[in-house]
Amino acid sequence: MTKILILGGGGMVGQKLANHLLASGLSGYKALDITLFDMAFPLKQDGRLRCITGSLTNAQNITMLAQLRPDIVFHLASIVSGEAESNFDAGWQINMFTMWHYLEALKALHIGSNGAYVPKIIFTSSIAVFGGPFPEQIDDTFLSAPQTSYGAQKASCELLLSDFSRKGFVDGISLRLPTICVRPGKANLAASSFFSGIIREPLNGQKAILPVDESVRHWHASPRAAAGFLRHAATLDSGLLENRRALNLPGVSCTVAEQIEALRRAAGQSIIKLIKRQPDDTIINIVSSWPRNFTANRARALGFQAEASFDEIIATYIQDDLPNASKASAD
Amino acid sequence: MTKILILGGGGMVGQKLANHLLASGLSGYKALDITLFDMAFPLKQDGRLRCITGSLTNAQNITMLAQLRPDIVFHLASIVSGEAESNFDAGWQINMFTMWHYLEALKALHIGSNGAYVPKIIFTSSIAVFGGPFPEQIDDTFLSAPQTSYGAQKASCELLLSDFSRKGFVDGISLRLPTICVRPGKANLAASSFFSGIIREPLNGQKAILPVDESVRHWHASPRAAAGFLRHAATLDSGLLENRRALNLPGVSCTVAEQIEALRRAAGQSIIKLIKRQPDDTIINIVSSWPRNFTANRARALGFQAEASFDEIIATYIQDDLPNASKASAD
Repeated sequence: MTKILILGGGGMVGQKLANHLLASGLSGYKALDITLFDMAFPLKQDGRLRCITGSLTNAQNITMLAQLRPDIVFHLASIVSGEAESNFDAGWQINMFTMWHYLEALKALHIGSNGAYVPKIIFTSSIAVFGGPFPEQIDDTFLSAPQTSYGAQKASCELLLSDFSRKGFVDGISLRLPTICVRPGKANLAASSFFSGIIREPLNGQKAILPVDESVRHWHASPRAAAGFLRHAATLDSGLLENRRALNLPGVSCTVAEQIEALRRAAGQSIIKLIKRQPDDTIINIVSSWPRNFTANRARALGFQAEASFDEIIATYIQDDLPNASKASAD
Repeated sequence: MTKILILGGGGMVGQKLANHLLASGLSGYKALDITLFDMAFPLKQDGRLRCITGSLTNAQNITMLAQLRPDIVFHLASIVSGEAESNFDAGWQINMFTMWHYLEALKALHIGSNGAYVPKIIFTSSIAVFGGPFPEQIDDTFLSAPQTSYGAQKASCELLLSDFSRKGFVDGISLRLPTICVRPGKANLAASSFFSGIIREPLNGQKAILPVDESVRHWHASPRAAAGFLRHAATLDSGLLENRRALNLPGVSCTVAEQIEALRRAAGQSIIKLIKRQPDDTIINIVSSWPRNFTANRARALGFQAEASFDEIIATYIQDDLPNASKASAD
């Protein structure tokens, strides 16, 4: 059995990943024994998934989660960008120090096993590690100069994971996910939440708030692509990373206006009218510091794949998540 | 009085800085009240300097050093690259976590003062934050992908200092110092120690070990230039940094062969014969991951100045430090 642990497994991407693993397994690995850890599990879970509820800020949980001796850890747990910005202390404690403590706990097992135990760690970093000014398209050697606490915390985790990996204690990779869109479910506290909202809410017959200008350009991939990135990373030979273990992942670069045009093509003019302009300076300010486009050449060469257009991203949402949402609202 | 605190003030650069501050003050500041903190003070100290001995890993010292309420903190304290590489735990605790704890202590004072207290922090980072492969010359937007624990720790501190500064708790700047050369005194555990040794030892009539090939190219500035960088940073309007608070500083790019040629020009052929080739794979391996040349355009535009040639670097050593060394060996 291959033991898989998903930290933050109750969240949207964690749930997508768990369901993909149950449905399709993991290339090169036979039977999977999947454990999810999170503060809460809002959705009903498949019986084949073991779910543990708790906080990563609890030292006993860190020890327990190491002693499960997972072969592969997907580390998706964090508080979101808006929350990390408004609560500085919680952001650093939850988004950075838990990574340190967990890596320390895994290192102790590595040493205790005389080096035999070397878990794979797939960490979801973010394009928030970048801060402006940017070139039109960010290449794979552009500096990380975050302009948010969330970004600084993710960048710090990348450094920790890289150094623990270089020493051979773990075998880590950091995936700088594009902004995931269209997220199913409800809006969250992430400053990026509206990018999903302006597509999701209208498709579900509800009004949506657009807090930024339509000229804002950003970088997106679907939840399905995110689950695909994570699974691909778990099967990748990390020797190919040549000790640069943080990857800019592929995605779709488009403006909000282009997003809305794609929605019009998919669902018609009447749907578009549900989007209400309501500028929010806090969100405008945070989003203005975010990158807009990437080459992602290294990740593409390593086999990571995303959608080719925002139309595809909307189609993915309609195919994967809209039926459930419609059913839920029809209940 | 302007209260100045030099963490790591007993070390070579800290001592240079303290003596420069005593001799020339700090542009824009009147009387200086200078406190040095370090594990030890090997040299006799000027009576105008207050010296405190202790470790930054001690929580009480962290509190005490914050409660001095320094206006300007020069944070030079760290264990060197070779030691951080051989002792993983000590490296992270001393080189990274002490920064976190000290920033937290200063933040508490900032909050306690209702935001009135915002100390300047000048942190000595290092070009070890960079890891190969490199372009011929590294520009100011090149990624930090360290290949040593020391480099990863310095890069982590840059992220912490930048985020605490962005939030207004402190006003920080990280200086990515070139390898300081020619260091006076004895060889130390830094993997870079030989760069000074092959100049210093022959000039003092002693044999020196060269553990790498003469084709190795690296990036240098003198101790006098380092003290100048630190003083300039303390007087800089950090608004000019536009929230990119880590700077690649100017220096001299040259090969070991060019260093030796400069030494020949300065001191003659007979001196050169004191350099003994003795390859050391550990040092070769560490040094191979180091950068070789920088544009340092931002720092130059901000007024940071270094030597123009390695001949100048040798001349600086002869002028500033060789007389003392000669006198010491003649005692």
